[in-house]
Amino acid sequence: MAIKVHGNKMSTATMRVVACLMEKGLDFQFVDIDMGADQHKQEPFLSLNPFGQVPAFEDGDLKLFESRAITQYIAYTCANKGSQLVCEDPKKMSTVSMWIEVENHHFDPAASALTWELGIKPVIGMATNDTIVEQNKERLSKVLDVYENRLIRSKYLGGDWFSLADLHHLPNMHCLIGTQVKTLFESRPNVSAWYADISSRPAWLKTVEWLKET
Amino acid sequence: MAIKVHGNKMSTATMRVVACLMEKGLDFQFVDIDMGADQHKQEPFLSLNPFGQVPAFEDGDLKLFESRAITQYIAYTCANKGSQLVCEDPKKMSTVSMWIEVENHHFDPAASALTWELGIKPVIGMATNDTIVEQNKERLSKVLDVYENRLIRSKYLGGDWFSLADLHHLPNMHCLIGTQVKTLFESRPNVSAWYADISSRPAWLKTVEWLKET
Repeated sequence: MAIKVHGNKMSTATMRVVACLMEKGLDFQFVDIDMGADQHKQEPFLSLNPFGQVPAFEDGDLKLFESRAITQYIAYTCANKGSQLVCEDPKKMSTVSMWIEVENHHFDPAASALTWELGIKPVIGMATNDTIVEQNKERLSKVLDVYENRLIRSKYLGGDWFSLADLHHLPNMHCLIGTQVKTLFESRPNVSAWYADISSRPAWLKTVEWLKET
Repeated sequence: MAIKVHGNKMSTATMRVVACLMEKGLDFQFVDIDMGADQHKQEPFLSLNPFGQVPAFEDGDLKLFESRAITQYIAYTCANKGSQLVCEDPKKMSTVSMWIEVENHHFDPAASALTWELGIKPVIGMATNDTIVEQNKERLSKVLDVYENRLIRSKYLGGDWFSLADLHHLPNMHCLIGTQVKTLFESRPNVSAWYADISSRPAWLKTVEWLKET
């Protein structure tokens, strides 16, 4: 594999792909896309992703975009390297797929809005919109109530093993844990224990170190 | 398999699951959820999907929700029945997964908003919001420009074979083809030819017949 990740370290979707590569112990070349200069909305980036969103991914002649498709590719191609993040049994995998979709449709819209308002806007000198924050805290609370109930019965979202369904949450949770949203996680014991577990994985700690490198 | 689909015939997500079952030639029991009476927001439905959205799916003791996770389960479990909608090769499958995500993140938000405004609201006696219609026609146009360009080079979205990536589009396109949105499809020759192809599949024609049954 000669892997390239074209992305930005402030993008949770970029972090998602890098976290997956770290779980598999795969080397990659990082191509920094300057989103402040709108590089993702111009060529040559648009040839990698016509929707103009980071990250884009290359593995030899294969070109992909959409972070969750990229993580699935990595997880299936390197099934026997590092941590097993997917499984072959379609019945077991269906529960993982379901929670991947839950992250995609329920967790991410609220969490990404909060990451933008509370994690990114202050860094790039924009004003946080408190109404949007309150609306999305309410949405996220309802989602986390479902998670709290799920995690009573299951150590991880997709079952008794750490899978892509869990991994996909790490970037937004990492960005939000340093904000007022932290209380939404901490007030739910099972969500809190789950996050403590998944965020202390060596591969995630390496991802966090990688984020700090300039 | 003893399959039950709990859903509603006005729900495109329900149609997505049924279309997949039809491609595989699988029998199923349909449990009609009266959304007008908010049955999806109450028990016993909430035990099947705590997010209160149709469809929910049962196959013996397996319970799933999220339509795209359900179609993947059906496609992988019954890989050798009916049409092959996924493939084992991770590289080929990664392109299918990418277009599944594109439908999920780009096509569906605009198309579902339009289906609601133009396909469902008039039927249930609600007024269409023209501003929302215009905004989402603009969003959908940009998405379809990317599709038009993709379909110059590839017969189907995921490659040279009909896959879940194509199938997932059928319900919203079916609902929109009878509305003013039709022109967005018809004005793009490759999108138009692709839709003519996928919507004439016997399994989809059976799904449309099933929708008409009372």
